[in-house]
Amino acid sequence: MNINLNENERIDQLYSNDVKIIQNPEVFSFSLDAVLLAYFTKIPLKKIKLVDLCAGNGAVGLFLAHKVNGIIDSVELQPKLADMAKRSVTLNDLDNKLTVIQDDLLNSFKHIKKDSVDIITCNPPYFPNLVSSKKNPNKHLAIARHEITTNLDDIMKISAGLLKTNGKAFFVYRPDRLTELFLKMSEHGIIPKQVQFVYPRINKNSNIVLVEGIKSGKIGGLKALPPITVYDENNEYSPLIREMLYGK
Amino acid sequence: MNINLNENERIDQLYSNDVKIIQNPEVFSFSLDAVLLAYFTKIPLKKIKLVDLCAGNGAVGLFLAHKVNGIIDSVELQPKLADMAKRSVTLNDLDNKLTVIQDDLLNSFKHIKKDSVDIITCNPPYFPNLVSSKKNPNKHLAIARHEITTNLDDIMKISAGLLKTNGKAFFVYRPDRLTELFLKMSEHGIIPKQVQFVYPRINKNSNIVLVEGIKSGKIGGLKALPPITVYDENNEYSPLIREMLYGK
Repeated sequence: MNINLNENERIDQLYSNDVKIIQNPEVFSFSLDAVLLAYFTKIPLKKIKLVDLCAGNGAVGLFLAHKVNGIIDSVELQPKLADMAKRSVTLNDLDNKLTVIQDDLLNSFKHIKKDSVDIITCNPPYFPNLVSSKKNPNKHLAIARHEITTNLDDIMKISAGLLKTNGKAFFVYRPDRLTELFLKMSEHGIIPKQVQFVYPRINKNSNIVLVEGIKSGKIGGLKALPPITVYDENNEYSPLIREMLYGK
Repeated sequence: MNINLNENERIDQLYSNDVKIIQNPEVFSFSLDAVLLAYFTKIPLKKIKLVDLCAGNGAVGLFLAHKVNGIIDSVELQPKLADMAKRSVTLNDLDNKLTVIQDDLLNSFKHIKKDSVDIITCNPPYFPNLVSSKKNPNKHLAIARHEITTNLDDIMKISAGLLKTNGKAFFVYRPDRLTELFLKMSEHGIIPKQVQFVYPRINKNSNIVLVEGIKSGKIGGLKALPPITVYDENNEYSPLIREMLYGK
């Protein structure tokens, strides 16, 4: 495969599913968030359409591609990131399955039919876009992390619009804004059904939370899955994280 | 101490703080929920007023009494339970510190001044009062567990009314209704600030959640504390639970 790499780009590999992914530490690299979100997302056996919003360099869609029977659309606003994602799709020979849409997620309905999606995944920017908040001077990273070009309300509105009734949305987020996430999901009719907290190590507070919601679900019936701990007492990845990264 | 015990009543003891408590398995016994809620409730050193709503046989107030510098009011609707609580207060020589108010919590403002309370604790009934829901044929237990005589909305309204600005409320609840809890808390201006999930054992879903909210807080800043596991691999209480029950 002849793939063009731009300056500062390199090819990383997620060994657990043999996915190769073009990264650029100066622009965007996928993090454990993407690996956790792909792990947490339940893919049914039937033929589905999956949409990954705020796709970045396409990591979540790429990680899930081998499990999905059907097609994936990855929506990313930033041209540089969308371009990396597109080349990674080709690199993994997934052009027939995974399409990268470079556009604002608010324009999603131009590209994807309303009420047509079985599964949404999204790793939204976590930090509110406050005047006071310290942002990364790198614009690409700032947009990926702060609510500069999108926010929870837009994400939930678009997710609810895209999903079929009873379609599912999977989010990775920060616990400190979980209340807002629940409020915004509920407001747009995506009812939280599963939640799983990730702890950096034993006896530390959680720093990542995974949330599954269902469109037009009945409120209630939330399951809190067993905690995930990233590092063990010896500062090594826990068995579950090792499996996510390197396979069984 | 000469305390009258009614039929089927017995005196149990929480060894970790030497509290004796009158129980009646036919009417109401405290459960691990009360022990967990007392553990989770942060008591400041300064002089405070604490109110325990849905007090049952008074367990939470009794468990916290030795830590509280100030006074405790325990509000319980059911006369039989309030009567047990009152006798337990005397049994523990706490009549100067802990008052049991037998009334509907909707009448709380008759007994306790608005905006006067530093800390609220509450172990609300968990189950919605649906016509279809299977209730305990024992009326006392049914009222304690189902939203027959109160509901989340009333509890949050009264809690918000009683608390001072920046006063704190501590709840023990079931994860399956956590979204509703967050929504109702937020609606009444009690912003979730800490959450801690309790798991019956390793690799099981959580069955109890502890939530702290602050009156008139700013949304966001939620901390998810380390998970608590009740039973270890050998089916014995984990060290933390043992400490809650039996002391160090």
